[in-house]
Amino acid sequence: MGEFELLAEIRKRLPAPGPHVRLGSGDDAAIVVPNRATATSVDALVDGVHFRRERASLAQIGRKALAAALSDLAAMGAAPGEAYVVLGVPGDLDEAGCLELLDGMVEVAAETETTLAGGDVTRAPGLTVAVTVVGHADDPGDLIRRDGARPGDLLVVTGELGAAAAGLLLLDHDDRHTGGSAEAALIARQLEPRARLEAGQALARAGATAMIDVSDGLGGDAVHLARASGVHLEIDADTLPLAAGVAEVAAASGCDPLELGIGGGEDYELLATLPPAALDRAAAGVGEAEGLTLTAIGRVDAGDGVEIRLPGGGNAAPGGFDQLG
Amino acid sequence: MGEFELLAEIRKRLPAPGPHVRLGSGDDAAIVVPNRATATSVDALVDGVHFRRERASLAQIGRKALAAALSDLAAMGAAPGEAYVVLGVPGDLDEAGCLELLDGMVEVAAETETTLAGGDVTRAPGLTVAVTVVGHADDPGDLIRRDGARPGDLLVVTGELGAAAAGLLLLDHDDRHTGGSAEAALIARQLEPRARLEAGQALARAGATAMIDVSDGLGGDAVHLARASGVHLEIDADTLPLAAGVAEVAAASGCDPLELGIGGGEDYELLATLPPAALDRAAAGVGEAEGLTLTAIGRVDAGDGVEIRLPGGGNAAPGGFDQLG
Repeated sequence: MGEFELLAEIRKRLPAPGPHVRLGSGDDAAIVVPNRATATSVDALVDGVHFRRERASLAQIGRKALAAALSDLAAMGAAPGEAYVVLGVPGDLDEAGCLELLDGMVEVAAETETTLAGGDVTRAPGLTVAVTVVGHADDPGDLIRRDGARPGDLLVVTGELGAAAAGLLLLDHDDRHTGGSAEAALIARQLEPRARLEAGQALARAGATAMIDVSDGLGGDAVHLARASGVHLEIDADTLPLAAGVAEVAAASGCDPLELGIGGGEDYELLATLPPAALDRAAAGVGEAEGLTLTAIGRVDAGDGVEIRLPGGGNAAPGGFDQLG
Repeated sequence: MGEFELLAEIRKRLPAPGPHVRLGSGDDAAIVVPNRATATSVDALVDGVHFRRERASLAQIGRKALAAALSDLAAMGAAPGEAYVVLGVPGDLDEAGCLELLDGMVEVAAETETTLAGGDVTRAPGLTVAVTVVGHADDPGDLIRRDGARPGDLLVVTGELGAAAAGLLLLDHDDRHTGGSAEAALIARQLEPRARLEAGQALARAGATAMIDVSDGLGGDAVHLARASGVHLEIDADTLPLAAGVAEVAAASGCDPLELGIGGGEDYELLATLPPAALDRAAAGVGEAEGLTLTAIGRVDAGDGVEIRLPGGGNAAPGGFDQLG
């Protein structure tokens, strides 16, 4: 099967295009009729850097590549629109493997009503998946940036933290399995994360002033948000919503559960700021949209930097416990 | 220099964003306010597949990656808007090298008024540059697809053919240099192609019915256009506008110059169909916009497939002379 035949086979598997798409894959470019504003982001996953082929199925790699890209749209409060995919294919991945990866991506596209509107397939020395996603909004002012946090705002986070990092520990270390019932869910959070697209739109509607997705780790992403907004963030570590099973995996690994919750990346939850009066509406919206909790974990002050108050009374560095003196 | 520092350095080098861009690189996503329609395409270049690092400067690789992506927008008749770049960086490419590559891309962005609005930098086993480009149009009907060619239309091509293939032969074979004055220009066409963005918009305004860029080679791209439009294309080989010096390089290589003109890829000229009455306006528009010639090289009939009539009276296969019986 040559490149053109593979592309033809890929096109056959694509679901029907969404309402904005006038011309999908197969021409020089896709034609889209947006609303007044778009949010566009690109994200790449490379074998050996962001995933390991021996640990995840090809369908899971496809799912994660699209979900990780869509998470950036969630963090803008955008409605998902189109995705454009570059697949770099190494010599040991055959066409059936490419299609299995694509099938995982098509599943996430269908779940999120995202149109796979174009792409490029090329040989590459290692499996590479780069995904550009375009989201839509009625107005550019409806999209939530990182730079709008104001002193007095609350800091909130969707869902639960530390799950993806705990799942990675379980995948990396066979000896840390505790047999707990939550382990499969933790591994799924690592291998098949979900973009909080509906929660992001609910937070935007409720009046979020700044938002970012938790991809690098809560502490690091809080630093990005604080820096962009020019504010100080104070986080109460004892309020962090750690996922079920994180404490057990941390114990088996000899680390503090908060290390996974603060320093662990790839949870793809949303970290947002909003006025205190908007909290109830935001929590209700996030719960209705995705059945997720919304937890107030801190507050915004004038100043700069991020301070994480530990239950015992000390402070943790935002980068996680590794950086503690 | 870590990833975040490199990204900060990259952002410093970006020119001011264009009129559609409300928020450029640095947040979860760029915010853009399009006109009524967008054209979006993605294109990836990989070391050892699409270029060789030992043959091209890093700036040239950056230039070509963006130009090749923009060529797809040219083929839609879209005005260039934004580009989003994934840079996969191997261990032997340092930060200075990344910035040199980016500088090449910034040059092309400035020349074409394209905004580099986002990106992702990651480690990778081989240098990989994936570029997503978004172009703008006032209306989706203004964008020219591959599928609109009608019997009775003329087939036209911008500029000159065979230059990039001849340049590649010169780069590949030191012994084929003839010392002719055109050689540097041929090599430049291979290493630093230009997207015919203004010519594409001029052809769209003049009433082009179908359009594609010549990236795979005139013959192969004609097949794509014929298949999408459901028509037969007849090309008169003796009308093909071969670039200066192509005949000499072909002679030194022991091949027919038409082989380079028909089978050689990466010229990034535009192949279009239009009603005969639109030819003069189209040629004037292309000439005014970019100083390029527009050459009628054949016609559209009912039927299917592509027929290339050779000067001597025979036919060539669209894939080039390699496929001739």
